[in-house]
Amino acid sequence: MGGEKISDLDEFLIIEKILKYLHENPLGKNEDAIAWKINDLYIIVNIDSLVRKTDVLPVMTPEDIGRKLVIMTCSDVIAKGGIPKIFLASGLFPGDESIDYLLRIVKGIRDTCDEYEIKYVGGDLGEAEDIILSGVALGLAKKLLKRSGLKPGDLVWTTGEFGLTGAAFHYVLFNGRRIKNMNRILESVKKPKLRLDEAKVIFQIATASMDSSDGLAITLNEMARMSNVKIIIEQIPLAKEVLEYAKENNLNPLSLAFFAGEEFELVFGTRGMSEEEVREYFKSYKLKEPFLIGRVESGSGVFYKNRRIERKGWSHFANEWYSLIRKQMSF
Amino acid sequence: MGGEKISDLDEFLIIEKILKYLHENPLGKNEDAIAWKINDLYIIVNIDSLVRKTDVLPVMTPEDIGRKLVIMTCSDVIAKGGIPKIFLASGLFPGDESIDYLLRIVKGIRDTCDEYEIKYVGGDLGEAEDIILSGVALGLAKKLLKRSGLKPGDLVWTTGEFGLTGAAFHYVLFNGRRIKNMNRILESVKKPKLRLDEAKVIFQIATASMDSSDGLAITLNEMARMSNVKIIIEQIPLAKEVLEYAKENNLNPLSLAFFAGEEFELVFGTRGMSEEEVREYFKSYKLKEPFLIGRVESGSGVFYKNRRIERKGWSHFANEWYSLIRKQMSF
Repeated sequence: MGGEKISDLDEFLIIEKILKYLHENPLGKNEDAIAWKINDLYIIVNIDSLVRKTDVLPVMTPEDIGRKLVIMTCSDVIAKGGIPKIFLASGLFPGDESIDYLLRIVKGIRDTCDEYEIKYVGGDLGEAEDIILSGVALGLAKKLLKRSGLKPGDLVWTTGEFGLTGAAFHYVLFNGRRIKNMNRILESVKKPKLRLDEAKVIFQIATASMDSSDGLAITLNEMARMSNVKIIIEQIPLAKEVLEYAKENNLNPLSLAFFAGEEFELVFGTRGMSEEEVREYFKSYKLKEPFLIGRVESGSGVFYKNRRIERKGWSHFANEWYSLIRKQMSF
Repeated sequence: MGGEKISDLDEFLIIEKILKYLHENPLGKNEDAIAWKINDLYIIVNIDSLVRKTDVLPVMTPEDIGRKLVIMTCSDVIAKGGIPKIFLASGLFPGDESIDYLLRIVKGIRDTCDEYEIKYVGGDLGEAEDIILSGVALGLAKKLLKRSGLKPGDLVWTTGEFGLTGAAFHYVLFNGRRIKNMNRILESVKKPKLRLDEAKVIFQIATASMDSSDGLAITLNEMARMSNVKIIIEQIPLAKEVLEYAKENNLNPLSLAFFAGEEFELVFGTRGMSEEEVREYFKSYKLKEPFLIGRVESGSGVFYKNRRIERKGWSHFANEWYSLIRKQMSF
């Protein structure tokens, strides 16, 4: 194994190198999902993998693991304008894992698919030293939503609040001090939700869209970079539990919101509609109003109160991540 | 991890338990690939995973690994009547693996996709302690070929000779004695071929079809079981290198043919055409004639010269597999 190691390079730089070998994706470069045009329809396909050692928090049951696989895989499909219809799962398990554990993961996959009217129809089974799951989601779209569609003047919205998963990572992995009600924080990692109803509405009006599973800072930076624009963030909706938890643990709540990840909210742009019109549009579909977080300008990068928000996020390197979320940090 | 362990049960019994949680696959139960009907078309989808530790022979280059991922994943699609069009690959790599090695795998995937006019458009990248690749192949079909379509009177055919990969496994993993020309044996694992041209013809005439990647004995048993019939094998085409290699190493060449696997031949049935008509049909498409290996009768099981061919195949448990291929064994 001579030459440069994978751990020496940022994941994004490795992906740049891989992309040179790929055929054209109608969604464009640097998208998680791919599109395949058949007649007047697009099939949106996404594959995502989950490794127990790095992607499963100890608070998660096997059913939660199955759920996470479905949500993480389908979230990239809905962010691209696709309605997920079909799900496959490949599972690799150590031989000494219990069959009950395996079947509880499978049950979690099935129940989550049922919740979102997705058919779980097949997969593959094999052996490995850790539990490794790959999900494949297939959806149908009539048009495509890219990361790259933002233009100066667009409004930038999200479908939910941020910071809950960051608080959960901190609580579980850094032995954080609990607040009175930890429920919403823990549920954010145990029972993530797919923004499917919202996606069906966003699809009609959005100029660009991406899910926030890489973390809000990476997501916004990626949308800004692919659109060749600057994003000015004006406010980030923070769950009150995040404010409480950050205070109790001397963390920066905005850092928890920007630099966590595995929050499956949709981040999207709108154009030619006033704030109020966008809100009314959501209400007309009986959906909660989205959160306006900022605006697009010409330029590059992501800024909050004149400070640049770096393209950083959750890291398996604990100290590195901890330095991102400390109260004292300046992002 | 209480209760029964995964290693306690046959893979097929575990899959039976998993199948209870799955929605209906239009291809039927126990198929590797799935079908998704959209208007008058079927999308055929397959996911397959490859683990370096167990699925990669030391003679394989990284380009060979990429090739194998494409062939193994697409083989299940063509066996079901689908023409593969789109490929995605998810790769998990140890951080200390070299970027060069990763990119050579990616190059192997791309080159193999190009060879079969498949678009390699996307995937996912992550970290694990071993190299773990998952491939997703999507194809289009106008009708479906199942495992379960055999009826008494059908002829049973294969697209190629058997035993080469079994000889390669033995040579590499059991320090086998080499024969003068090892080339075809080693190429069978390093450079497997996709029977795409044959599949386009088989699709028109076959009553049932399955790829032989699980090994010929498992494939035939599975087709017999799913079709509720008995298969009588009359002859198995053996490469001359297999005969030579088996002799040199005191192995049973027929066992190498029945009990190996990762040979990506198609096994299919025909009805209402004479042997000669099937051969002429292939020749009319400028393809090599297929090999007639047997006939379907009513009953159950797979038989060769009045001996039952058990549903056994390649096993990571070396001694178990070795006992299958020894010259003295009675299958």
